Amino acid sequence: MNADLPPAALADLGELRDRLRRFAQERDWDQFHSPKNLSMALIAEAAELVEHFQWLTEEESRALPPDARAKVADELADVLVYLVRIADRLDIDLLAATERKLADNEAKYPAARVRGSAKKYSDY
Amino acid sequence: MNADLPPAALADLGELRDRLRRFAQERDWDQFHSPKNLSMALIAEAAELVEHFQWLTEEESRALPPDARAKVADELADVLVYLVRIADRLDIDLLAATERKLADNEAKYPAARVRGSAKKYSDY
Amino acid sequence: MNADLPPAALADLGELRDRLRRFAQERDWDQFHSPKNLSMALIAEAAELVEHFQWLTEEESRALPPDARAKVADELADVLVYLVRIADRLDIDLLAATERKLADNEAKYPAARVRGSAKKYSDY
Amino acid sequence: MNADLPPAALADLGELRDRLRRFAQERDWDQFHSPKNLSMALIAEAAELVEHFQWLTEEESRALPPDARAKVADELADVLVYLVRIADRLDIDLLAATERKLADNEAKYPAARVRGSAKKYSDY
Repeated sequence: MNADLPPAALADLGELRDRLRRFAQERDWDQFHSPKNLSMALIAEAAELVEHFQWLTEEESRALPPDARAKVADELADVLVYLVRIADRLDIDLLAATERKLADNEAKYPAARVRGSAKKYSDY
Repeated sequence: MNADLPPAALADLGELRDRLRRFAQERDWDQFHSPKNLSMALIAEAAELVEHFQWLTEEESRALPPDARAKVADELADVLVYLVRIADRLDIDLLAATERKLADNEAKYPAARVRGSAKKYSDY
Repeated sequence: MNADLPPAALADLGELRDRLRRFAQERDWDQFHSPKNLSMALIAEAAELVEHFQWLTEEESRALPPDARAKVADELADVLVYLVRIADRLDIDLLAATERKLADNEAKYPAARVRGSAKKYSDY
Repeated sequence: MNADLPPAALADLGELRDRLRRFAQERDWDQFHSPKNLSMALIAEAAELVEHFQWLTEEESRALPPDARAKVADELADVLVYLVRIADRLDIDLLAATERKLADNEAKYPAARVRGSAKKYSDY
């Protein structure tokens, strides 16, 4: 990487996948990046996110001060990194899989039936 | 949503964010979607991913049969959905946060120093 | 196991460890019970616990209806099973380790200093 | 607590429950210890356990060096603390719940049927 230039901004998930792929290859880390290991790394990062919120009220979690918000942004990025990495190692198209999931959810929870009901929500 | 048309393919994370936002609003579910609650939902989905791999060897996790791979794709989608949703609720730009994280990681783990060393890797 | 008799009640963690050890041996499952795999199984069970609470308010989580409470008891048991199993596989005395941790916590959070302060609590 | 005396050794889970109860009361922390929040704290500790193992092979996880083993013991203790605390807050008898779970598992996985079969194991 040319030290004179800032890293190019990420345009999309495809570019992120490519950056992460190159990052692992340059360090010879693919050997550690089995889907099994990556799933462990992902949940460890997800837990750091949970940790930020564990003693906050829901209300407090909606209105984070700037420094907490920056840390949460960091944890979200860590989760995304491992998510994209697992998808790449298994040759899964993340957006296509999510597209299917959205269609499923829209069929499973019709707005007209579940709207505004906490009870119904938690029953699903 | 027009039942005659398939849902449009997801072009990018911005579109996913918008779809999820609309999905929650149509169901009046924003009240449940505090960042605190969403972080719990995210880690529950991450754990379903882990569950797929817990009794597999690393080698097996690299070579999933098609049906297992489809289930894993599903879990990855679930994680992405909550990830994008939390970012949206906190007004965080997920790709920008990830861009910063990549730059940090590239500085923290210079390829020339860490290449090919399991020991160094696990020390980080 | 004699089918005419109910299983003996568990007296303590040592007996639980012995029951689990025998259970795995009789099924030849020790080969799957590496600490790595068991840590994955443990967090998957912990996530099922989290899932029970994710859309509840804190208040609701304090006052579970009987059926939800029974399910939570089940998840807690699952976590304990894997916890005791990992400790056994690594020859760790769980109560002794916890005793040390309590002493640490008592030193780290002196009651006189932290009492009644949410702010201080979340700062720790 | 009398600073001249070491903390008494933990005899059993009941004593641990009582120590933790007193610990929270002395600090006025029961207000933060809703089952919801405690489940988040528990999974965050479980993830620290996972983190110790994420880049290790299964074989390495079975043969931890002493310092890693001590850290793992610490994480196990953290999980146990929150587990006992949640059970107490919901008035659940942890050993009795585990006793029921063991009986279920013994019925669900008869040794004669599942012995020595990885395939069968991962199918359950």
